[in-house]
Amino acid sequence: MKWSQTHLYTFKEAPNDADITSQQLFIRSGMIKKVAPGLFTYGPIFLRSLRKFEAIIRSELEKESCIEVLMPMVQPRELWEETNRWTEMGDGLLKFKNRNEQWFCLGATHEEVITDYIRFEVKSHRDLPKNIFQIQNKYRDEIRPRFGLMRGREFLMKDGYSFDLDKESALKSYWSMYEAYKRIFNKLGVQYRIVEADAGNIGGSLTHEFQLLAEAGEDALLVSTGSDFAANREICPAVSPKKLEEALENLKEVEEFPTPGLKTIEDLSKNLNLEKYYLVKTLFVSISEPKDSDLKAIAILVRGDHELNLIKLKNFLKLNFEPRLLNDQEVFQLSGAHPGSCGPVGLKIPVYVDNDVLPLKNFIVGANKDGYHLKNVNMNRDFKPEAIGDFRFAQEGDLDPTQPTFELRTYRGIEVGHVFYLGTKYSEKMNARYADKNQGTQLIEMGCYGIGVSRTLQAIVEQNHDSEGMIWPKSVSPFLVHICVLDVKEPALLNLAESLEKELASLGVDVFIDDRDERPGVKFKDADLLGFPVRVTLGQKGFEKGVGEVVLRKGKIKKEVLLNQLKASILDALEV
Amino acid sequence: MKWSQTHLYTFKEAPNDADITSQQLFIRSGMIKKVAPGLFTYGPIFLRSLRKFEAIIRSELEKESCIEVLMPMVQPRELWEETNRWTEMGDGLLKFKNRNEQWFCLGATHEEVITDYIRFEVKSHRDLPKNIFQIQNKYRDEIRPRFGLMRGREFLMKDGYSFDLDKESALKSYWSMYEAYKRIFNKLGVQYRIVEADAGNIGGSLTHEFQLLAEAGEDALLVSTGSDFAANREICPAVSPKKLEEALENLKEVEEFPTPGLKTIEDLSKNLNLEKYYLVKTLFVSISEPKDSDLKAIAILVRGDHELNLIKLKNFLKLNFEPRLLNDQEVFQLSGAHPGSCGPVGLKIPVYVDNDVLPLKNFIVGANKDGYHLKNVNMNRDFKPEAIGDFRFAQEGDLDPTQPTFELRTYRGIEVGHVFYLGTKYSEKMNARYADKNQGTQLIEMGCYGIGVSRTLQAIVEQNHDSEGMIWPKSVSPFLVHICVLDVKEPALLNLAESLEKELASLGVDVFIDDRDERPGVKFKDADLLGFPVRVTLGQKGFEKGVGEVVLRKGKIKKEVLLNQLKASILDALEV
Repeated sequence: MKWSQTHLYTFKEAPNDADITSQQLFIRSGMIKKVAPGLFTYGPIFLRSLRKFEAIIRSELEKESCIEVLMPMVQPRELWEETNRWTEMGDGLLKFKNRNEQWFCLGATHEEVITDYIRFEVKSHRDLPKNIFQIQNKYRDEIRPRFGLMRGREFLMKDGYSFDLDKESALKSYWSMYEAYKRIFNKLGVQYRIVEADAGNIGGSLTHEFQLLAEAGEDALLVSTGSDFAANREICPAVSPKKLEEALENLKEVEEFPTPGLKTIEDLSKNLNLEKYYLVKTLFVSISEPKDSDLKAIAILVRGDHELNLIKLKNFLKLNFEPRLLNDQEVFQLSGAHPGSCGPVGLKIPVYVDNDVLPLKNFIVGANKDGYHLKNVNMNRDFKPEAIGDFRFAQEGDLDPTQPTFELRTYRGIEVGHVFYLGTKYSEKMNARYADKNQGTQLIEMGCYGIGVSRTLQAIVEQNHDSEGMIWPKSVSPFLVHICVLDVKEPALLNLAESLEKELASLGVDVFIDDRDERPGVKFKDADLLGFPVRVTLGQKGFEKGVGEVVLRKGKIKKEVLLNQLKASILDALEV
Repeated sequence: MKWSQTHLYTFKEAPNDADITSQQLFIRSGMIKKVAPGLFTYGPIFLRSLRKFEAIIRSELEKESCIEVLMPMVQPRELWEETNRWTEMGDGLLKFKNRNEQWFCLGATHEEVITDYIRFEVKSHRDLPKNIFQIQNKYRDEIRPRFGLMRGREFLMKDGYSFDLDKESALKSYWSMYEAYKRIFNKLGVQYRIVEADAGNIGGSLTHEFQLLAEAGEDALLVSTGSDFAANREICPAVSPKKLEEALENLKEVEEFPTPGLKTIEDLSKNLNLEKYYLVKTLFVSISEPKDSDLKAIAILVRGDHELNLIKLKNFLKLNFEPRLLNDQEVFQLSGAHPGSCGPVGLKIPVYVDNDVLPLKNFIVGANKDGYHLKNVNMNRDFKPEAIGDFRFAQEGDLDPTQPTFELRTYRGIEVGHVFYLGTKYSEKMNARYADKNQGTQLIEMGCYGIGVSRTLQAIVEQNHDSEGMIWPKSVSPFLVHICVLDVKEPALLNLAESLEKELASLGVDVFIDDRDERPGVKFKDADLLGFPVRVTLGQKGFEKGVGEVVLRKGKIKKEVLLNQLKASILDALEV
C-alpha cells in the first residue's frame, strides 16, 4: 500500500490528555483518533493490526473447535434481571430507555445473552460440550476513561463461553482455553505472564489472568525467580522469607511508654531503633454490608513491614462485598485512640491476626491512648485472636509459595486476557439445563474467556517502543516492511519499490511505501514512529551505486544491500 | 465443517411474530435468534454468509482505492448538534445520558463522525480525494421492528463517504461507487434494479437505490420494459400512455347534477357509465410547516384513474417537510362539502393541476355541495390553475420517460444499497474545508454510500426460496456443498465425506457434513431448509453399488454419480 492511497497523518506532539506512552504514540501515528473521552475511530493502519490479531485468535480457537457467533451490543433488561446483574453491575453498565420506554443496556459482557442463546436450543446431554465465542464491541461506562484504548468506553473484545456436562469437563474446557490463550500470546511474540487472580463477583473459583508486562500497567504482579508461579498482587499468597529467631525469648511484662507525635511505623522504627516487623500495626475494618447502617467492625494485626490486603480479608470472611477501612472518628470510638496509637489489648471487637505476626514475641502495639504504645505484648496472653490467616499483600522478596527455594519479584502488568471457571452461577439463575442420561435434568457448567483485542494492541506498544516510536512485533505489525522512497519524482525508484511490494506480497509479506514528496528526515521520523519491523530506504544516490539500505526497527541496525539482494535481505531480516 | 461440531438447531415452525418468508426461514434454520424485538444473535452458519458478503464488498471497494476504518457506535451529542441532526433525526436516533450526565447517541449513520475525522487532518487540496468506509453495527430505534433483519434495530452496514475538491470530482466519485455497487450486486448473483429515488432530507440532489426484487419488498418500483430506466414509485416521472382524443370537442356549459351517495370514482364511473379519467379528483393538502398553527391549504386536481403523490408535490413546492392531506372537517370548512363532492370551481385557495388533467375538456368534478357534481367543467374558463405539474404517481402501463416506445412495469423491491451525492451539506455545517491552490479555502464536496449488509442477506433469501427452504446463490451461501451422510455409524461413508471435504477445500469449495445420527428424511428436510447450492447424499446402499447422489438445490435436479466421479460432478454442478 502506498502512503498516498491511504488516510494517514502523523503528529509531532501528542495531545495533553494522553497520559501514557503507547496512547501518545497511537494518537501521534494516526492509529486512532479520539471522538469523545473513551471513544475512538480506528484508522486504516491500526485496523490492519486488529485484523491480524483477530486472525491469530480465530486460528487458535478453531483448533479447540470453538464456534463463532455475533451477539448484539444492545441487550434487553429482562435478561440481566434474571441474574440480578441489572443492579449488581452498578453504573459501569450503561442503561437507557428506548422510544417505547423499554429498558436496554449496552453489553459490557455477554454471559446473559449467550446463556439465553444456548438454553433455548441445548436440550440433551448429547448437545454438550459447546464452546462459543465472538469478536465484538463492548461498552463500559468508565467514569474517567484514560490511557487511550487501555481504559476506554467502547472497545473490541473476544469473549468466549464454554458449556459442559459437569465440573470435570468444564475444567477440561477451562484448561484447553488456558492453553489456547498461551498459544495466542506466544504467537504475538510479547512478554507476558499468566497469573492467578481474584475471581471477584463474576463467580467460580478458578481464574487466571494473562498479563502483558509493562511499566505503565495498572496491575501489580508477583513472579517467581525460578518456577512458573505468578500471581496478581491482589491474591498472591504471602510467605515470609525467613523465620524470626525470637521464638525462644521469654515473655516479658507489658509496659506502656510515651511516644508523643510518633504515629507511623517509619517514625517509630527510627526513634525506637527497632526493626519494623516488631512494630505490629492494628487496622480497623467494617464488615457490615454497604447498605447496612449498623457498624460491624473488626481489628486486624499485620507486621509493621507488611500491608493489609482487603481482598484476602474479604475472601477469608466469604463476603460478597469489599470491606472498608474505618475512618479516624470510628476508630477513636472503638479504641479510645486515633490511628497510630491503637492496639489489640483491651479491644471489645474481634481481632484477626496475620500469619506473620504469629512467631513474634514481646512486640510493640499502640496503647489505645493517644501518644502511647505498649511494649512486650504477646498474643493469647494479652489479647485473644478471633482467627489467624493470610491477610497481607505478598511483596518483593517473599518466598515463591509453590517452591520456597525461589523468591518473588514484582512486575507491572496490563491485563489482556482472562479465563474464568464459572460453575453453575449463570445456568442456575437462568435455568439453563440439559436432560441427562437418567431422565433427570442437570445445570450446565460454564466458563468464560476474554481477550481485550483493542487493548492488547496498545499494550503491545506500551511494552515495545523506544523514544522514536512504536516497535511492532511481526505478528501484528500493520505492515512488515516500510519502504521509504526518497526521490519520488524518479520513476525508477518507485518502480523498484512497487516490484518489491509485489514480489514480497506473493510471499505473504505486506509492504508499505512512503511515496510522499517529503524530505528524507520527515520520512525516517515517520517510519520510526510507525515502527514496522523492517525499513528499506531507496534513494537516488544509492540507486546509482546499485544499493539500498535495510534497517531493523528494533535497535536500528542498518545494512547497505545490493539492489538485487534487497528481497533476500528483507526476508532474512524478517526471518521469513 | 461437521454438523456435530457447530451450534445449529433447526425448527419445524417459525414463531408467530415472523411476518415474511425469509424471516421465518432465517429463524427456522438457526441463522439468527431473536434476543429482543429488532435485536438478533447471528449464528455460526449465518456468520459465514456475512463474512463472504463482506469479502465481496471489500474486494470491490479496494479496486476504487477506498480506505477502511472503524468508527465507534456510541457518539457524542456535540457532533450531531453541529449539523442540527441531534433534533432533526427525531426519535429514530437513540439518545442517552452516560453516568456523568453527558449525552450520547447510538450511531444510526456516521456522516458527523467521519466529517469530524477528516476535517481534523485534511488541510490541503493535495489531501483529496478520499473515499473512506467501514463495515460496522448501526442502531436505529424503530418503533415497530419487523421482518427480522429487514427492519431491525441493530444491524450491520457498510457505510462509505467520499470527499472531493469540487462538484465535478464528487460526481466522479459518485459514479465510481455506483459502478462498484453494480459489480458487488452482480457478484451476488441476484435480481436487482438500480432506481432513481427521492433524496429526502439527507441532502444533495442525485441518488440511486439498489433494490433487490422480491414480492415482500417495502418499496414499489417502476421498471422499463425496454430501457435501463427504473425508478422508485415515490419519484418516477409520470407519462400517460396515450393522448386523449377529446381535444377537439367544443366547450359545453357547466351543469350541476345530483349524485346522491356517489362519493368514490369507482361508484361514479359505474353509475354514470364514464371512463374514470373523465372524473377529476380534487384533493386538499396542508402546506403549513408541521409546527405552524395556521392552516395553509391548497387543492390539487388529478385524473380519476391517477393517484396523488405527496413527495412530488413536496419537491415541486420545495418544502422541507412532507405536506399532509386535510381531514374531512378541514375540507368541509374550505369547500362547503365533504370529500367526494368537492371540486375546483369557486374555491378560494390555490388550485394545482396535474399534467394529465391538462388535455381534458368538459370533465366532471364535485360541486362543493354534498351529493352533487358538475359536468362540462373546463380549466381556465371555470377555475384558474395556480400551477401545472407532475403531481401523480406513475403506474403500470405508463410510458418509459426516457424512451416512450417502452412501457413501465411495477415491481416490489427491498432497498439494499443507496448512493447519495451530498454536496456541501455536511462540510458547510461542520466547516470541513481545504486550502486551495490560490491561498483560499473551499468546502469539501461529499457523497455517502451505504449497503445494508445483514439486510441484504435476508433479502436474498426473500428472493430465493421455495416451499422447502432457502436457495442460496453460490456467492454468499454459508457452504457450497452439503453432504448428507445417511449411515453415520459406517466409518467408510464418513471417511469418504471427509476426504471429499478436504479435496474440495483445496479448490476453495467449502463443505458442510451432516454427521448426525438422524433419519434420512430429517437430513433431507434440513438440507432443503438450509439451501446450500449442492447436496450430496452418501448412503450405505449406494456405497455398496459404488454410487452417490448429487442434487442441485435449485429445482431439486438429482443425479446418480459414481463415487470416483463425485468430486468432478460437484464441481460441474457448481460451475467451478
